[in-house]
Amino acid sequence: MALVGKKIGHSPVRSFLTGTRSNDVILNVLTNEASKYQIFQRTLCTSSVKNNSTPGSQVSSKQSLDAVFVFTPTETHADYICESLRRGKAVMTEKPCGETYSDIKRCYDLAERMDKVLLTGFQRRFDTTFQDVFQASRNKALGDLRFMRVTSRDSPKPPYEFLRNTDVSGCSLISDMAVHDIDMTVWLTCAERPISVYTMSHMHDPIMKEISQPDSSLLALKYESGLMVIIDSERESPYGYDMRIEMFGSEGMVKAENPRESSAVVDGKDGGKLKRLFNSFPQRFEAAFEKEIDHFIDCLDGRDTPLIKKEECLLTMEVVEKGVESFKTGKVVYL
Amino acid sequence: MALVGKKIGHSPVRSFLTGTRSNDVILNVLTNEASKYQIFQRTLCTSSVKNNSTPGSQVSSKQSLDAVFVFTPTETHADYICESLRRGKAVMTEKPCGETYSDIKRCYDLAERMDKVLLTGFQRRFDTTFQDVFQASRNKALGDLRFMRVTSRDSPKPPYEFLRNTDVSGCSLISDMAVHDIDMTVWLTCAERPISVYTMSHMHDPIMKEISQPDSSLLALKYESGLMVIIDSERESPYGYDMRIEMFGSEGMVKAENPRESSAVVDGKDGGKLKRLFNSFPQRFEAAFEKEIDHFIDCLDGRDTPLIKKEECLLTMEVVEKGVESFKTGKVVYL
Amino acid sequence: MALVGKKIGHSPVRSFLTGTRSNDVILNVLTNEASKYQIFQRTLCTSSVKNNSTPGSQVSSKQSLDAVFVFTPTETHADYICESLRRGKAVMTEKPCGETYSDIKRCYDLAERMDKVLLTGFQRRFDTTFQDVFQASRNKALGDLRFMRVTSRDSPKPPYEFLRNTDVSGCSLISDMAVHDIDMTVWLTCAERPISVYTMSHMHDPIMKEISQPDSSLLALKYESGLMVIIDSERESPYGYDMRIEMFGSEGMVKAENPRESSAVVDGKDGGKLKRLFNSFPQRFEAAFEKEIDHFIDCLDGRDTPLIKKEECLLTMEVVEKGVESFKTGKVVYL
Amino acid sequence: MALVGKKIGHSPVRSFLTGTRSNDVILNVLTNEASKYQIFQRTLCTSSVKNNSTPGSQVSSKQSLDAVFVFTPTETHADYICESLRRGKAVMTEKPCGETYSDIKRCYDLAERMDKVLLTGFQRRFDTTFQDVFQASRNKALGDLRFMRVTSRDSPKPPYEFLRNTDVSGCSLISDMAVHDIDMTVWLTCAERPISVYTMSHMHDPIMKEISQPDSSLLALKYESGLMVIIDSERESPYGYDMRIEMFGSEGMVKAENPRESSAVVDGKDGGKLKRLFNSFPQRFEAAFEKEIDHFIDCLDGRDTPLIKKEECLLTMEVVEKGVESFKTGKVVYL
Repeated sequence: MALVGKKIGHSPVRSFLTGTRSNDVILNVLTNEASKYQIFQRTLCTSSVKNNSTPGSQVSSKQSLDAVFVFTPTETHADYICESLRRGKAVMTEKPCGETYSDIKRCYDLAERMDKVLLTGFQRRFDTTFQDVFQASRNKALGDLRFMRVTSRDSPKPPYEFLRNTDVSGCSLISDMAVHDIDMTVWLTCAERPISVYTMSHMHDPIMKEISQPDSSLLALKYESGLMVIIDSERESPYGYDMRIEMFGSEGMVKAENPRESSAVVDGKDGGKLKRLFNSFPQRFEAAFEKEIDHFIDCLDGRDTPLIKKEECLLTMEVVEKGVESFKTGKVVYL
Repeated sequence: MALVGKKIGHSPVRSFLTGTRSNDVILNVLTNEASKYQIFQRTLCTSSVKNNSTPGSQVSSKQSLDAVFVFTPTETHADYICESLRRGKAVMTEKPCGETYSDIKRCYDLAERMDKVLLTGFQRRFDTTFQDVFQASRNKALGDLRFMRVTSRDSPKPPYEFLRNTDVSGCSLISDMAVHDIDMTVWLTCAERPISVYTMSHMHDPIMKEISQPDSSLLALKYESGLMVIIDSERESPYGYDMRIEMFGSEGMVKAENPRESSAVVDGKDGGKLKRLFNSFPQRFEAAFEKEIDHFIDCLDGRDTPLIKKEECLLTMEVVEKGVESFKTGKVVYL
Repeated sequence: MALVGKKIGHSPVRSFLTGTRSNDVILNVLTNEASKYQIFQRTLCTSSVKNNSTPGSQVSSKQSLDAVFVFTPTETHADYICESLRRGKAVMTEKPCGETYSDIKRCYDLAERMDKVLLTGFQRRFDTTFQDVFQASRNKALGDLRFMRVTSRDSPKPPYEFLRNTDVSGCSLISDMAVHDIDMTVWLTCAERPISVYTMSHMHDPIMKEISQPDSSLLALKYESGLMVIIDSERESPYGYDMRIEMFGSEGMVKAENPRESSAVVDGKDGGKLKRLFNSFPQRFEAAFEKEIDHFIDCLDGRDTPLIKKEECLLTMEVVEKGVESFKTGKVVYL
Repeated sequence: MALVGKKIGHSPVRSFLTGTRSNDVILNVLTNEASKYQIFQRTLCTSSVKNNSTPGSQVSSKQSLDAVFVFTPTETHADYICESLRRGKAVMTEKPCGETYSDIKRCYDLAERMDKVLLTGFQRRFDTTFQDVFQASRNKALGDLRFMRVTSRDSPKPPYEFLRNTDVSGCSLISDMAVHDIDMTVWLTCAERPISVYTMSHMHDPIMKEISQPDSSLLALKYESGLMVIIDSERESPYGYDMRIEMFGSEGMVKAENPRESSAVVDGKDGGKLKRLFNSFPQRFEAAFEKEIDHFIDCLDGRDTPLIKKEECLLTMEVVEKGVESFKTGKVVYL
């Protein structure tokens, strides 16, 4: 297989896959959602992406298959990932690798043993604005970090079918959604380890109450260095997809503000009007998603190593588990 | 005494005090800080404001004295307020009325008995931006409240002499500074009562550590309605005086953003540059302070009743006390 | 008379006038508009400002009168100014000093002969935002100037009575309103002399058409250095008082954006909402107006010299006259 | 040939071209710039786009060729367009179709006779922000239009080789660059016809002076309705690609502000910092360009008709020619 040195222009995936040797590349997408499959097909601009639409079916062991994208329900991730890795395929997976700390560890340990790329899809790390936040925190524009907040409000509200079936014994708002925010925290602090977690939450929607799943939650983290972090999450934001970060330090502050659908401003008798925030994540993170797939191909090709590391994924899951513990007990939980 | 019907134009205080009958009005300012006295003199535009520069001296019982402004160290507030009220003077005081719940209650009870105006100076309530936030939350633009944050970062850092001597046995960052933010919370929720408080804090500055006073703290409040509130406070903001509020509800969100020193924007090779935030509270709240004094005169004159109510001041102090308890125990405290 | 050395704190006027010797100061305001008189009285915080409400009456020659403020209709400016100067009084006047280049020259020449301060009230020069624009253009952040625009849209529309009676034979939109914008241009270019002016205009409002006065106009100026300037003016801006400046140079750009009534932002289903621009000039330039009066007192007191210079006022009037000539002929006019 | 009914999802081009029948589609790109060819190949995600890298060669008459993209130097546009149309191919071309009014008319007349799609590539019409401006002006949010400005500052400066060889006898800043802004004006006014044009310009760069080409220009248009339009253009913007529009009417104003590279904001001791504007048009109009190609495919397929109309292109060229005449004579030119 020959992905080496194929980077042409700024879009290695498309360039490679639309090149003369594209027949040599076959990627497998495991998903039962047609829309996700289409995103891949469109991003990769090729029909050599195969959709394994029955997730129950076996991962192909065909030699010519280079990599497997796992975009199935979370509870099936670890099995598919391990099965693929065992057959010598690189894997890119939706976050998280698995439902538990030990599942995630199992996947990454196997990837190490097989010497295969395993990339967990925290696409926000590839967003230009969040990368600027990262840079500001790295180049000492902020001094010593003292406070950080991650605001995460989904839009539109996920379907009840999904909400009823996700992490039923835990808190899906934390494990399925805030997990992205926790990853941001892990990334932006260079995997500094919090010492305590306190969770507050509420079930506003009667149906959410019925299924015992909060639609509004808040995690308060404390670190040895004195850093305090607030992650506030909402299942439904009426004004669009609201994802913000703010980092405050002894020398300054950086904020990732929300982009809007356009930069038009209308002024009239009653004041100014701005366009809406993007409606949902596909609009907000379209470019990040493409950059993430490019990054995966770069990793496949040996030109880069995964930006999302094993230790980070494990720390993220540890915080998720402690946050859920605090959610259940109502008490501060120590790591 | 004739303050009735003197409102001319938008600035009743100045109009009245610069009017022909201004000799009839004498106001007493109790403070040992020359600058605070000057602010009053300047705002009221008159020399009929008397500065009682030795706070130990008696409050005048002269008949022609209408009101007393108490801007002395907090530990002396309650005594001066009560002494003034007993002599039949209206009182405007710096927040809070006293150092404890019972002191504040004592002051307000006496004001009720004497039927005299007692106005606690939470000047942020008179800020145009915060009033717009209040309006948005009242007119149902937000729907049901779900999350609220108050960010409060002081600039410049108060002198160590002040920090060493303020609320030495408690947490001055909460009792002296976050008390403003708690008042905002009380005001904006129409005095809804929280059910629990959890405090996180840290002492970054070695001198603050030495005097056991946090320079960074965070209060997490939970309400019966499901509302969650975060108040994050910093003793020193390097980029200027940073006071923000955000309210999130089922129908929308309102934010009070920071104004800047000017609305000039410079674009150059390296990006855009904005002016600094205001350096400190006198610049940020200059107009609010004037409106507050106007409001006090309106109350004196019977045209209005104090915007800041007894019950609100008591609830604010209750939250302060529970917040300090959580600070000391490291545990969630219930009201 | 003793204004020397009285500057206390940041507000010399008020401090002085509210000081012990305030009885020594008498200022005369000539105006037939009650509101303007009140502004002065309020700004100066004193009753020692006398309103000469019948502009026909003589300017007092009383020794104790230090200065005269001329806020009468423009056609009477030059006479009052000269009468006051001749009696040895300093003068601050609303823009412009007179209706013609020769009137303005007459006033300034006399001020020089009498060695008295004459300050023309272009209050925008004292606005913090516009001063930041000036600084950016001076400190070479912009490089060589290439393009500049001044946008000037009044709110609310002036009363027809005023519009019917102002500069009836010329173009009041230029001589009465754009004169401020031309002053900005003169100031920001350090009185660089344009080589040509081209005016476009239109009468949208039928009543304006009837009285042959444009309610929409545009001046295009060209300079020897290559600089091009556009001044666009409107008699009525439905969304509030809109005053902006933009300067573009070889190294960057600076913009004076409009401030809004508050910095609250509301986000809802239909997008974001901002507060209105300030409704009119008293709100927008309140602080600038106070700083201008302070500056005048500083000039009276010998601590400063007028920021608005004779040569600048004359160049401004020259551009006004050429702009009106282009308005009348429809052709490019050269200076 | 079967483009009918192939629209799948939001991206018909990609979906179609990556579909099973993509072998049936062959598109021809005429350009001598490798980068432009790559943009097409990448946007269309297919190798069935053929690059005719020697523009001198014949346009293929192969039956299976559906359309020709003409991205050659402007002086060759009209010939390639007509040759392609005559062979029965649809054409999408870079603006403008030709160098003169008569060339453009020749192309469109032929397209009508051949009943083939001819789309002129004014990509800004497909930009979301500019489309919002268009909507605001259509839905009466602005009332009657009174003033409009289009600001157009290129970044980085085009290579001198290009500048030396483009429209050498005219003014390339108008014909090659402001032509986009004039198209915006034509679009946003629904092809209202101006009555006069006045051009100001300057040659700042010595090399531009040597080749007699302005690097800074300004067009002032006047309309029967009273509308006034300013188009200000610069060959080099040091702070990034600056494209803005502002429309002012009797009821309100709409502005298309510039997006920035990201929405991160850093606040520090010296104020706030924003990211740079996009560096150039490929970043700024990437999405618009893709939407334009989608629109072309929709037109090919009979699902839509070209958004850019013959009459609009002719009016745009008329304004270009009058603007150049004013540039040469220094006088106001009437249409």
